[in-house]
Amino acid sequence: MRAIQVAGRQELNAPLNKTDPLVLFMPSGKRGRFPVGTPVLDAARQLGVYVESVCGGRATCGRCQIEVQEGNFAKHQIVSTLDHISPKGPKEERYERVRGLPEGRRLSCSATIQGDLVVDVPQDTVINAQVVRKAAVDRHIDRNPAVQLCYVEVEEPDMHKPLGDLDRMKLVLEKDWGWKDPLIAAHIVPQVQAILRKENWGVTVAIHRDMDISRPFIIAMWPGLKNEAYGIACDIGSTTIAMHLVSLLSGRIVASSGAPNPQIRFGEDLMSRVSYVMMNPDGREAMTKAVREAVNGLIGKVCEEGGVDRHDILDAVFVANPIMHHLFLGIDPTELGQAPFALAVSGAMHYWAHELDIDINRGARLYTLPCIAGHVGADAAGAALSEGPYRQDKMMLLVDVGTNAEIILGNRARVVAASSPTGPAFEGAEISSGQRAAPGAIERVRIDPDTLEPKFRVIGVDKWSDEAGFEEAAGAVGVTGICGSAIIEVVAEMYLSGIISEDGVIDGDMAARSPRIFQNGRTFSYLLRDGEPRIAVTQNDVRAIQLAKAALYAGVKLLMEKQGIDHVDLIRFAGAFGSFIDPKYAMVLGLIPDCDLADVKAVGNASGTGALMALLNRDHRREIEDEVKKIEKIETALEPHFQQLFINAMALPNKVDPFPKLSEAVKLPPRKTPSEGDGDMSAGAAPRRRSREERAARRRG
Amino acid sequence: MRAIQVAGRQELNAPLNKTDPLVLFMPSGKRGRFPVGTPVLDAARQLGVYVESVCGGRATCGRCQIEVQEGNFAKHQIVSTLDHISPKGPKEERYERVRGLPEGRRLSCSATIQGDLVVDVPQDTVINAQVVRKAAVDRHIDRNPAVQLCYVEVEEPDMHKPLGDLDRMKLVLEKDWGWKDPLIAAHIVPQVQAILRKENWGVTVAIHRDMDISRPFIIAMWPGLKNEAYGIACDIGSTTIAMHLVSLLSGRIVASSGAPNPQIRFGEDLMSRVSYVMMNPDGREAMTKAVREAVNGLIGKVCEEGGVDRHDILDAVFVANPIMHHLFLGIDPTELGQAPFALAVSGAMHYWAHELDIDINRGARLYTLPCIAGHVGADAAGAALSEGPYRQDKMMLLVDVGTNAEIILGNRARVVAASSPTGPAFEGAEISSGQRAAPGAIERVRIDPDTLEPKFRVIGVDKWSDEAGFEEAAGAVGVTGICGSAIIEVVAEMYLSGIISEDGVIDGDMAARSPRIFQNGRTFSYLLRDGEPRIAVTQNDVRAIQLAKAALYAGVKLLMEKQGIDHVDLIRFAGAFGSFIDPKYAMVLGLIPDCDLADVKAVGNASGTGALMALLNRDHRREIEDEVKKIEKIETALEPHFQQLFINAMALPNKVDPFPKLSEAVKLPPRKTPSEGDGDMSAGAAPRRRSREERAARRRG
Repeated sequence: MRAIQVAGRQELNAPLNKTDPLVLFMPSGKRGRFPVGTPVLDAARQLGVYVESVCGGRATCGRCQIEVQEGNFAKHQIVSTLDHISPKGPKEERYERVRGLPEGRRLSCSATIQGDLVVDVPQDTVINAQVVRKAAVDRHIDRNPAVQLCYVEVEEPDMHKPLGDLDRMKLVLEKDWGWKDPLIAAHIVPQVQAILRKENWGVTVAIHRDMDISRPFIIAMWPGLKNEAYGIACDIGSTTIAMHLVSLLSGRIVASSGAPNPQIRFGEDLMSRVSYVMMNPDGREAMTKAVREAVNGLIGKVCEEGGVDRHDILDAVFVANPIMHHLFLGIDPTELGQAPFALAVSGAMHYWAHELDIDINRGARLYTLPCIAGHVGADAAGAALSEGPYRQDKMMLLVDVGTNAEIILGNRARVVAASSPTGPAFEGAEISSGQRAAPGAIERVRIDPDTLEPKFRVIGVDKWSDEAGFEEAAGAVGVTGICGSAIIEVVAEMYLSGIISEDGVIDGDMAARSPRIFQNGRTFSYLLRDGEPRIAVTQNDVRAIQLAKAALYAGVKLLMEKQGIDHVDLIRFAGAFGSFIDPKYAMVLGLIPDCDLADVKAVGNASGTGALMALLNRDHRREIEDEVKKIEKIETALEPHFQQLFINAMALPNKVDPFPKLSEAVKLPPRKTPSEGDGDMSAGAAPRRRSREERAARRRG
Repeated sequence: MRAIQVAGRQELNAPLNKTDPLVLFMPSGKRGRFPVGTPVLDAARQLGVYVESVCGGRATCGRCQIEVQEGNFAKHQIVSTLDHISPKGPKEERYERVRGLPEGRRLSCSATIQGDLVVDVPQDTVINAQVVRKAAVDRHIDRNPAVQLCYVEVEEPDMHKPLGDLDRMKLVLEKDWGWKDPLIAAHIVPQVQAILRKENWGVTVAIHRDMDISRPFIIAMWPGLKNEAYGIACDIGSTTIAMHLVSLLSGRIVASSGAPNPQIRFGEDLMSRVSYVMMNPDGREAMTKAVREAVNGLIGKVCEEGGVDRHDILDAVFVANPIMHHLFLGIDPTELGQAPFALAVSGAMHYWAHELDIDINRGARLYTLPCIAGHVGADAAGAALSEGPYRQDKMMLLVDVGTNAEIILGNRARVVAASSPTGPAFEGAEISSGQRAAPGAIERVRIDPDTLEPKFRVIGVDKWSDEAGFEEAAGAVGVTGICGSAIIEVVAEMYLSGIISEDGVIDGDMAARSPRIFQNGRTFSYLLRDGEPRIAVTQNDVRAIQLAKAALYAGVKLLMEKQGIDHVDLIRFAGAFGSFIDPKYAMVLGLIPDCDLADVKAVGNASGTGALMALLNRDHRREIEDEVKKIEKIETALEPHFQQLFINAMALPNKVDPFPKLSEAVKLPPRKTPSEGDGDMSAGAAPRRRSREERAARRRG
């Protein structure tokens, strides 16, 4: 096969014969003519169709499986039949006998082209993942991993040619696989001789090649044929660490899981963790250790789920927000807590996994995506890679809402990015009855515009609160508070039903219409649930949501102004928050700009998906590295216009911006003319704005 | 200066004006025309003349000093005067005031060309070394080290351009120094921000670039201007570890020293160390640890001598014989103890020094020269690099005699190499009164051909033994034995005076002429010194020397036959042994082939010199890597003809080869026709040959 491969290539560099069979590869659609007798694998390689092969064409690894699609493909002018591929030879038959070959599958290293063919390269990217918040990737990712397994048979030592064992192995790696003068990880050197001799000079070598080192690098080595290698893609969030375990050979997600970020014990939000570092001499070290241990623990978890030995993990890609990114890399994040919010490193980083104490294969590599800016991290870069605003013509708004919102807006022509300190209100913090999404939390709310009576749904309970049997069903979990998605809904419903005005004031006059509106000191509240606990929405709660949504919207609007546009074509919500809110209510509140509701989508943990893409295809690393350099970063704090945008955005949905598409779907209350109340609110906004900035300073990142 | 440098280059890419000043750099002899106003440093750079500069032309590091040679250089058609260089400007004057500038010296970054010049680039390669056995390098080595110090001033962080601190540093490294997208050692990443801020964003970066990684690598970083960096060149011998500590910026040897190889406690010779590994489960690890600790200890010693902080050492080059090489790298040397003597690795190796537990700067690199063959190691490669047979037309024989002799023979056209197991006889072992070279050892011997009376000199005593006052002078040290150089001389003198025959038999008939020849069982001995201890040369001693010298000579002769030559032009003795033997006696014995005695030279620790060259100039690394690939390796054990060459070489000086040039210098005894004695010796040689091979098997490497 070695010879065939090389000879095939050379022949095929000769002028093509137009009568040679035409071969079309699916799903890539790449096609070309090849002489009769060319192995299908060689044809794929020449066209740049990625077909895995570990054994180098010996028909032993079984990785290079393809399927012939039979039929008359008139569009492609190909009649593809099973006669157009060679019958199974002895090597392929032996493989089938010993290892089994699914119906219709062929080994492309052994099967040769005999006529026109449509060849399907099976994409084994199946979901085998636990359903967790930050998981579930069902997209197809073209594979071009940074790590490749290569089986070689090394010549035995010869006194006449006293080249070292490693050096002879390098020669055959060049001859069979084209790896020119690879380097080798230091820890392997002492093992080379024993590994070579264990399976009679047949070894599998893991080669790593990525932009950081133009020469290929031998990072692992096994006796005989090693037929599986894994990678991990990991998103280190402030609250949750999410991880995919993936086969680098098939692209299959073997397991996905999440674990809480143990740094929470040092501080709930990012800024309190930065403070911890500033106040405690060993704070940085302790938090770095905590997050690395958690990552190692999570690796153990996904490996157990997937039945994988952690030492078979050879590559790792990480994304994180800037402060998590720095702490994971062992960098003091203090500079990120104060202007000018200087990142120690923004570019993509290349490590040996062991340099960051990640306990996988000793030769495993580790790659971190670049950070976009001091508050727009590698996680945002991952989301950008996943959703690819820069890959399309439509204008896409990509937002990831947490305690800080990362906002990316753009298309093929230009991408701009910013962050806005929304604070934790959307996550239920700073809300009188707020809580994290958990059983017992109210997650959906509707208010009858006539009676002003609410109904709601609770996590863990199927029935609405006005349905018979709700109280019994809710008995087990209770009704404990309001989670983020319901806060959006209840404030929006209060606005739609006239309980609160455009400027966010709970209208005391409504107390006459319903006892649910009640006075509470100088302001009014809305009683959502009487009982234990008593759940009400206070004026302060509404203000907190207004401040949060105004921060997000003002950031979005600023980027829209930079782009010179008055509407966006697509909106993508990344992150857990986006998965649970109803786009309609988000738009009623004026959290996001007007857009066709059908074009607003939640995309889950897009950061993690971006990490997965970078793991499975190193071209995606170059793609996002290049793109991040091009993205224009806007620092909202430096834009004087931001203040006005923020004040406008305090109104529901907005003081100045129309929402024509939303108005088609939802009957919005009539706009009021500015009243004194607005003046009050604006006057009130200034000190609040200051306090927002104080909070922001605590929360930044 | 940044701007000037770039502008200068661009201007100079314009067509040359033949009226531009002509500048000649010495000692390189490189010359070119440059516009008036070009900094001398820029002119040097353009011509490829290596002038150090750390500060990037800020006139603060003082590394770029040059001297103008005044005079009319008719041969070069240059009249060079001090008027042809610009007067000192304020920056250079400031440097002179603060740091001092030797008379005549100028900073080439500040001094500009005003007319024709002859510029001397001072080579600060001065010897500052302790005189140790394996030291003292007085050659000039063109510098092109793998590590370069670069001072840069990094832009402060800017919220409008949120590039990381490291990333902005990379940009200025590219702008000022041309380093494109350097990688960075992982341990530096967490320190980047603090180092940048310590001296107001001015930092010195150590860049490593070598063939292993085509992208430059940031390996160290200091606040402000760091103006010195060191390297070590080390030869790990079986008995002695020798080391040079060198400034990478000036090429100056700061200290040279040696230390015993502590592996001696595991076995005196190489093969007994391999046996130790084979017999003891932790043997390899223990020996690796021992040698690395000894290297670390020796680093401490040279640093103390040189007043250098070991953490300022940034690069290291090692040579060693194959078994020492493997043990140092942590590789089990068992395979080297048995056919086919397979090296685990033969090529040059690149490490981080800390990967081999070498305690210098955390980012320091470590390079090992390639091994030539299973018994011709990186030390022989170092000697080849140092003496460069392949760089010249004359046929050079390069021999390094230890317990194993490495033999390299060749010229520009072709180089062949072999090893021959001489055994330890030349080092005084296996000799009845033999000892290592130390005070009290006889080192020189003369025998009066008429009286057969000897005279000798002893290490540590100035007088010859027949001079008045010798006994008193020798009283302190005693006369304890015969060292290697004296063994050569005494056997040669016994031959020249007729005490032993051409075939090495001590002639019992001579007992009648002198009581110094006495019977000793079935053979005779020669009494060199009566006393305590009684020092005699026995028939067995002569046989041991004959076997050793025959092994060496047969190896040389085999290579001569491969080259198709009957004489060599130059002979170079590398290693300690070569430094102390008298070439004349070596040739009388037939240790080396006939050659003009003036062309036989001892070159000291050429291996260490080769390591030094590879340390100071990475071009030398490529040179020896390429050369080692080209050298033809001859395995003497596989050459059937070797037996006959060996038997011929048992005779003094040789049974068949003439020594015409030696005969001109020394009156050799008349040749005998083959006698029965010869037959006896040949018959006797066969079993001895077997035992030689058994010993060889113990000693190999």
